[in-house]
Amino acid sequence: LYIAKNLMEKRRLHVCLTPALLPTFNVEEYVVVVIDILRATTSMCVAFGHKVASITPVETVEECAALKAQGMLAAAERNGEMVPGFDFGNSPFSYMKPDLAGKHLALTTTNGTLALHQAHQLGAQKIVIGAFTNMSTLNQWLLAQNTSVLLLCSGWKQRLNMEDTIFAGAVARTIGHHYDSMDDAAQVARTFFWSANLQKRRFFERSSHYTRLVHLNLQEDVKFCMKKDTFHVLPIFENGRLLDMMAPDYAQLHAAAVQ
Amino acid sequence: LYIAKNLMEKRRLHVCLTPALLPTFNVEEYVVVVIDILRATTSMCVAFGHKVASITPVETVEECAALKAQGMLAAAERNGEMVPGFDFGNSPFSYMKPDLAGKHLALTTTNGTLALHQAHQLGAQKIVIGAFTNMSTLNQWLLAQNTSVLLLCSGWKQRLNMEDTIFAGAVARTIGHHYDSMDDAAQVARTFFWSANLQKRRFFERSSHYTRLVHLNLQEDVKFCMKKDTFHVLPIFENGRLLDMMAPDYAQLHAAAVQ
Repeated sequence: LYIAKNLMEKRRLHVCLTPALLPTFNVEEYVVVVIDILRATTSMCVAFGHKVASITPVETVEECAALKAQGMLAAAERNGEMVPGFDFGNSPFSYMKPDLAGKHLALTTTNGTLALHQAHQLGAQKIVIGAFTNMSTLNQWLLAQNTSVLLLCSGWKQRLNMEDTIFAGAVARTIGHHYDSMDDAAQVARTFFWSANLQKRRFFERSSHYTRLVHLNLQEDVKFCMKKDTFHVLPIFENGRLLDMMAPDYAQLHAAAVQ
Repeated sequence: LYIAKNLMEKRRLHVCLTPALLPTFNVEEYVVVVIDILRATTSMCVAFGHKVASITPVETVEECAALKAQGMLAAAERNGEMVPGFDFGNSPFSYMKPDLAGKHLALTTTNGTLALHQAHQLGAQKIVIGAFTNMSTLNQWLLAQNTSVLLLCSGWKQRLNMEDTIFAGAVARTIGHHYDSMDDAAQVARTFFWSANLQKRRFFERSSHYTRLVHLNLQEDVKFCMKKDTFHVLPIFENGRLLDMMAPDYAQLHAAAVQ
């Protein structure tokens, strides 16, 4: 029995504080959670909460424009602002529309979509989307997987940011004790979340990204992005696009995707 | 006056949590503090506290052996252990010897010397050595410089570690309010230090590097490395070697070095 226990694969919970550190991980050993709280992964969850059929995350504005030309709805954000000529920017509120249901959406953002593609290129076992918006759904699903987890913070242009670190810490604090080990980054994030939790707003107000957003008058976005469990969704990256595993027709869409 | 104030260069306090993130900074804008608490920068401070004349940090064991062959004292550590055939490993206690006085030392370590050379190659304005051992001397000197500061954590093999993050946070907490801005990494480190401060030992015990050191029976080293202001020294990197700016003969050694 003792030997059997040691032979069992250890499940680890690790945190990658910015995509610049991703090459230091053996990405193929993990289920990767892409985190971009302000605002890409929050907005993705909101879009799925409004029953969008799929989201195709692309790296460049040009790719996004090409998919729009093919008839998809398209969202493009750069440096916190909506790129002119697209249907949506990056505000979660712009996705709160009933007419999104059943539509296919293309999306590019400054940090989040880039982090997702890096994780894909480095061979992540699975890639899912995390935000406070779907935190409990995410945590439950992660625990049901028999794998190590890498919480990948998108940060801001290869640097760490507070809000993604806080979310990674919130996940580590909630489910970390179910894992065999955490790395030092998970410990730092967990402690940071714990300190920030009682005074979350104050922390966001100190964050460099918050300052950028406030400059753009997006305080309401920030407040929404901090709210837990708004939607029971879990976007997963499959064959180049995100599908919601919690959608009633997921099995059907998944089957179509893998054909 | 308003214009004059805006034209004045802003002094920023930034934290680089691992050398892997160093290329994301314009290193030439900063005075860089190299941090490797367990144990390279701590040991360097101890050696200068025992009046070593200079320390030449080198990247490889081979370079270190070559300098030893030329008659220098030499210290080499890899993965926490002393490399056989050298005079010292990386324990601060091994440098507490009166016969170090006036000697020239060559040194290579797993993480700290590498971080120092990266900062040098990327054109740091000045490079100094920080540890709890010389923390107040370091802080006073930093405040006297009219420049931005980058606290460079050596980490462990390109990953973040707790003890370097805690020290960066301790510095940010002590002198951060004198700077015009801090980045999100500095905020995270500062908060982490604050949480860790009351229970420092417990934090170190969770750290992955501590676990490695305990395995090597080095608890006494860890205790020493956490102690503040043991020596009034401030090593600076000049012309390929470290000199102690607080040494009575520093001006003389410096003049010789720049000739």
